[in-house]
Amino acid sequence: MTGTVPASFTADDYEARMERAARQAAEAGLAGLLVAPGPDLVWLTGYTPTAVTERLTLLVLAAGRDPVLVVPTLEAPDAARAPGAPALTLRDWTDGKDPYAATAALLDANGRFGISDNTWAMHLLGLHRTLPGTSYASLTEALPMLRAVKDAAELELLAAAGAAADAAFEEIRQVAFAGRRESDVAADLAALLRRFGHSQVDFTIVASGPNGANPHHEVGDRVSERGDMVVLDFGGLKDGYGSDTSRTVHVGEPTDEERRVHDLVREAQEAGFRAVRPGAACQEVDRAARAVIADAGYGEYFIHRTGHGIGVTTHEPPYMIEGEEQPLVPGMCFSVEPGVYLPGRFGVRIEDIVTVTEDGGRRLNNTARELVIVD
Amino acid sequence: MTGTVPASFTADDYEARMERAARQAAEAGLAGLLVAPGPDLVWLTGYTPTAVTERLTLLVLAAGRDPVLVVPTLEAPDAARAPGAPALTLRDWTDGKDPYAATAALLDANGRFGISDNTWAMHLLGLHRTLPGTSYASLTEALPMLRAVKDAAELELLAAAGAAADAAFEEIRQVAFAGRRESDVAADLAALLRRFGHSQVDFTIVASGPNGANPHHEVGDRVSERGDMVVLDFGGLKDGYGSDTSRTVHVGEPTDEERRVHDLVREAQEAGFRAVRPGAACQEVDRAARAVIADAGYGEYFIHRTGHGIGVTTHEPPYMIEGEEQPLVPGMCFSVEPGVYLPGRFGVRIEDIVTVTEDGGRRLNNTARELVIVD
Repeated sequence: MTGTVPASFTADDYEARMERAARQAAEAGLAGLLVAPGPDLVWLTGYTPTAVTERLTLLVLAAGRDPVLVVPTLEAPDAARAPGAPALTLRDWTDGKDPYAATAALLDANGRFGISDNTWAMHLLGLHRTLPGTSYASLTEALPMLRAVKDAAELELLAAAGAAADAAFEEIRQVAFAGRRESDVAADLAALLRRFGHSQVDFTIVASGPNGANPHHEVGDRVSERGDMVVLDFGGLKDGYGSDTSRTVHVGEPTDEERRVHDLVREAQEAGFRAVRPGAACQEVDRAARAVIADAGYGEYFIHRTGHGIGVTTHEPPYMIEGEEQPLVPGMCFSVEPGVYLPGRFGVRIEDIVTVTEDGGRRLNNTARELVIVD
Repeated sequence: MTGTVPASFTADDYEARMERAARQAAEAGLAGLLVAPGPDLVWLTGYTPTAVTERLTLLVLAAGRDPVLVVPTLEAPDAARAPGAPALTLRDWTDGKDPYAATAALLDANGRFGISDNTWAMHLLGLHRTLPGTSYASLTEALPMLRAVKDAAELELLAAAGAAADAAFEEIRQVAFAGRRESDVAADLAALLRRFGHSQVDFTIVASGPNGANPHHEVGDRVSERGDMVVLDFGGLKDGYGSDTSRTVHVGEPTDEERRVHDLVREAQEAGFRAVRPGAACQEVDRAARAVIADAGYGEYFIHRTGHGIGVTTHEPPYMIEGEEQPLVPGMCFSVEPGVYLPGRFGVRIEDIVTVTEDGGRRLNNTARELVIVD
């Protein structure tokens, strides 16, 4: 789900984005783009349906043609109020009619189309059944960088979301951890994110002690105690743009080994950050962070990629991962979040959102990266 | 998103469901079923990933083979704790590897597969690229009734969810409407649903006055006043199963026309309910309700189908719609919710969840269907 888009974007902004997307599609040899509800649609039109259901809503973009939003009749009034609606034509279809036939009328019957990654398979199959001569590529594969380079207004919103998440961290480090459940601390974190302006909280991971060794452990009933490492990873949407930051704190004094592993992850995070510069490949950020951890003998305990993009979602291209040769471009925003996970014992992860500048990178999260001791 | 499944379902229950699904797939001439995160997966395994992302999670079911859940490595520990996990094998894949190749190894290279409706298009395209000889049908198309017939335990949970929604209505009819915003009443409704046991609130539509004429108007800042019709349509998940009910109330005394339209919709709803019996086609429920409204001259103002199924989601097959010839079977559960929408003026909708019994139907919502006057 995506949140409310700030009023600062006008119909002209959406029109420009739709034109750019259609042009990029044509340059990539595509007959057009098919955009389903979700982050692509909210970025291109500002429209989010009340719910994503089996009823087809699809934006059709093709170079040289006006954008058309195919929409269920009973959702047409809401769609017409979207901020980007003045820049497109609505074509509604009524329950009982065939939405794929309605869409097919807008498409080159032998064209190849980019289609939003998260479009329901049933819709893709319905379109292909209606126009067997068409073929499809996922939007991320066809135009992976469509939303990746943020403009100045987007960067401001991302920076504000990051600052709000940082403010939440500054408060959460003051609360008691020992004797409280992970779920209690997570509830505090969610309330803080909202207090600092988030309209949507996507995740508030509080992974204490051995739970920290599972990078996707969200939250549970475990009660933290003195001696625990605790991974905090939290974010959501503020004014339509995402935050995502991780810090690992320690309840009371850490052991030498815990401190050493934390220092190692901090050094890896710094190395990843320093690898950010225009023209560097995404995989170089991953390699730089990974090399630090591997050189220290912990390579097998860093079991995920180093980062992911962020924008109108908290999780999108570009990915900082081995094999991703996409060059970095000023305005791209993504996480740098190496970690070490020692099964059954503890984990450490440190994560900042970083944006590519003309001559390097700039962090959008700026709380202490040193190991913070909590009570 | 789907909610927590009650502990009452055991690994044996999930095993039986997976076996039944695989058998039905084979009977339908399919080489297997591919099940993505969402309601199909939660029904079959009890597993819901923390977040649905571009990382592939897919359950592979084929008759005569053990079920396999393909899962990202970093989500494998959570998946292993799912209630249905003992009945399946986990096959994890690590960031940077090709998840489609990992899945393809489990599939007949020339098979036709049913695939969850809401599987991301990028995954379908990735599988098809890896195994060009495969073909696909959406699960709803291939096995539309897979989850439609509820067992006794599921019916109890749906009845309890309906009773909780009814309890919320009994409270909300006591609150003040006049002078308050739709969003205030909606917040009350959401809090009531939670108070009566809902873990997830999916929608709390409060559509007052002319807003009621837009069936998907959710909620806004409009302040209700005396003389308004107000459509209330609310539901969510309680113990993993859905509620969904609508009542239309009036702030102060209605006009004769308002009362007449409300009576008409009530009569249509009753006619739809009376059409429910084993062996009747879904479309007969729609026709019965629609005929009442059309005969009164309001046919053009009933602009949606009459109903949809409910279970681990609040919106699923079977659909009560013209053209749906699926016969009703005892244990099916769905809404009967005709409405009349007079543009710019007001709307009326009355909705109950109904389950098919051996000799007719039984309502799972039982609050007054007469026009309720509120303050």
